[in-house]
Amino acid sequence: MKFLISTLCLAVGSLHGQNSLPSWNDTAPKKVIVAFVERVTKEGSPDFVPPEERIATFDNDGTLWVEQPNYTQVTFAIDRVVALAPQHPEWREVEPFKSILAHDREAMLRFSIQDFEKVVAVTHSGMSIQQFQEIVKKWLAEAKHPRFKRPYTECVYQPMLELMQYLRTNKFKTYIVTGGGQEFVRAFAQQTYGVPPEEVVGSMGKVKYEYDKEGNPELIKLPEVLLIDDKTGKPEGINMVIGRRPQGAFGNSTGDQQMLEYTGAGNGARLMMLVHHDDAKREYAYGAESKIGTFSDALMAEAKKKGWIVISMKDDWKTIFPPAVTNE
Amino acid sequence: MKFLISTLCLAVGSLHGQNSLPSWNDTAPKKVIVAFVERVTKEGSPDFVPPEERIATFDNDGTLWVEQPNYTQVTFAIDRVVALAPQHPEWREVEPFKSILAHDREAMLRFSIQDFEKVVAVTHSGMSIQQFQEIVKKWLAEAKHPRFKRPYTECVYQPMLELMQYLRTNKFKTYIVTGGGQEFVRAFAQQTYGVPPEEVVGSMGKVKYEYDKEGNPELIKLPEVLLIDDKTGKPEGINMVIGRRPQGAFGNSTGDQQMLEYTGAGNGARLMMLVHHDDAKREYAYGAESKIGTFSDALMAEAKKKGWIVISMKDDWKTIFPPAVTNE
Repeated sequence: MKFLISTLCLAVGSLHGQNSLPSWNDTAPKKVIVAFVERVTKEGSPDFVPPEERIATFDNDGTLWVEQPNYTQVTFAIDRVVALAPQHPEWREVEPFKSILAHDREAMLRFSIQDFEKVVAVTHSGMSIQQFQEIVKKWLAEAKHPRFKRPYTECVYQPMLELMQYLRTNKFKTYIVTGGGQEFVRAFAQQTYGVPPEEVVGSMGKVKYEYDKEGNPELIKLPEVLLIDDKTGKPEGINMVIGRRPQGAFGNSTGDQQMLEYTGAGNGARLMMLVHHDDAKREYAYGAESKIGTFSDALMAEAKKKGWIVISMKDDWKTIFPPAVTNE
Repeated sequence: MKFLISTLCLAVGSLHGQNSLPSWNDTAPKKVIVAFVERVTKEGSPDFVPPEERIATFDNDGTLWVEQPNYTQVTFAIDRVVALAPQHPEWREVEPFKSILAHDREAMLRFSIQDFEKVVAVTHSGMSIQQFQEIVKKWLAEAKHPRFKRPYTECVYQPMLELMQYLRTNKFKTYIVTGGGQEFVRAFAQQTYGVPPEEVVGSMGKVKYEYDKEGNPELIKLPEVLLIDDKTGKPEGINMVIGRRPQGAFGNSTGDQQMLEYTGAGNGARLMMLVHHDDAKREYAYGAESKIGTFSDALMAEAKKKGWIVISMKDDWKTIFPPAVTNE
């Protein structure tokens, strides 16, 4: 029955666009999205894209879920250092672990790339991918966002969930292209966003093929980096995993600029959008001055110049988060 | 109408298995394939795999197309050296180019990894991915296999084309996981195998995000290697691009052993097969002694021990190649 219904929906193209985006106000961004989908899905249209070639790419932090007051994966890594500390008494005297264990937020804000690399090395390597993802799932099931008091996987943007679903209904593949770790995001992307592991592109570490005690092969995470999927790394990651230029790209910060630029350089109809966090009341308001999710003035100027759509969370979104599913 | 038909086919599971593999003899391999597909596609079966999780991976050289007397991509690289030589008069005095330009086959057989790296550097980098793929397509349109006198993209195994199509009809994604270059194989995989770019995993080189003279962004191929997608690199590449363990894996040489092993280590029904080149009359006969596509005695012993199916080209395949499409 579900099959028949989706057949009927396809037969009428993207007719359900208006109804598919209930959390979007009837402002410019929603209209642009629906017009774009109609152009690329209408057979005979000069912008028609065959269903199997329809690709949309979404940044994760700040585009699909909350990234303030800290990237969720950084919070995860810090929590892991605390959890692992009893097995590492030496950490009490060694930075950056000493500051983490002392909950010295000021010191953590001054952490260098090298400090973060040390934290990632002890929390994100030395185990199999399967073991790592079980750790992530367990953490996500228990951890709560400090302000919203909900699991991080519920601190996702309802309008973006609707947009992804709307695009999938119109035969787009909706890839996540994140600066976050590929294995970290794969641990929850299917359940949270409906995005399967093969459609998650992220920062990648090297892995080593080994055998466990029973002789079963497994992939062990190593501390070496293979790809930082941010800035120019985003088109590179898109090429590695997808091998096609997207028709649509969605981001929120300077780390997404090259992905949008690369998407926009293709022929035919293209849709590039940036979520602007201007809603301190319902979420956060930040931009050029923020260290996390920087939306620089240069990016805003570029968006204006190139016709990229800037989404105002305040004005364009009716709701921010999905209805609570927990009993609180 | 096509849509309706495929709906009906799905409703009856893999009923068309017998009819879908006309180039396979009614020997063990065909029976094993059909039985496997029936087990994983039958709802309620303990081995049922949801359609969206069905993954099969195929090696390319020697599994989907001919790899003798030389890997096609090596032949391509040599032809490119010859084509580029007029712009590089210095190559006449410098190895490995000197031997290539002198058509010294004996010397070429002794080339070291370093020699090949030099050849790959000058033939596979310094241009955009798009430019590279245009060069590959042009070459494939003109080059012919020395023995079969047909384009390389016609020197593909008809039974394997039918197997891929049969699996896709049963909702499998059919990935190519090749030691060959990812961009090289993507240049013809859709047209030749029905495999889109995002389902090609191959050896990967670094790329650089740059701007052309008109200011358009492009990805430039660099000579540095990111992944050698062979042996342990195959499970690593599968994890990078797919992020799931396949249910079925198909190869023909020692380079595929870890991919089959990794596939077989999963729960539920699994299908691991190796094409054995034992048909000198219709194709080639080679195995443990061959430098190209080595099928070692150890691999044969491993296949027997683990129940991997060895396909005899001679006994199990009615035909080797598709009917000629060229007018010769």
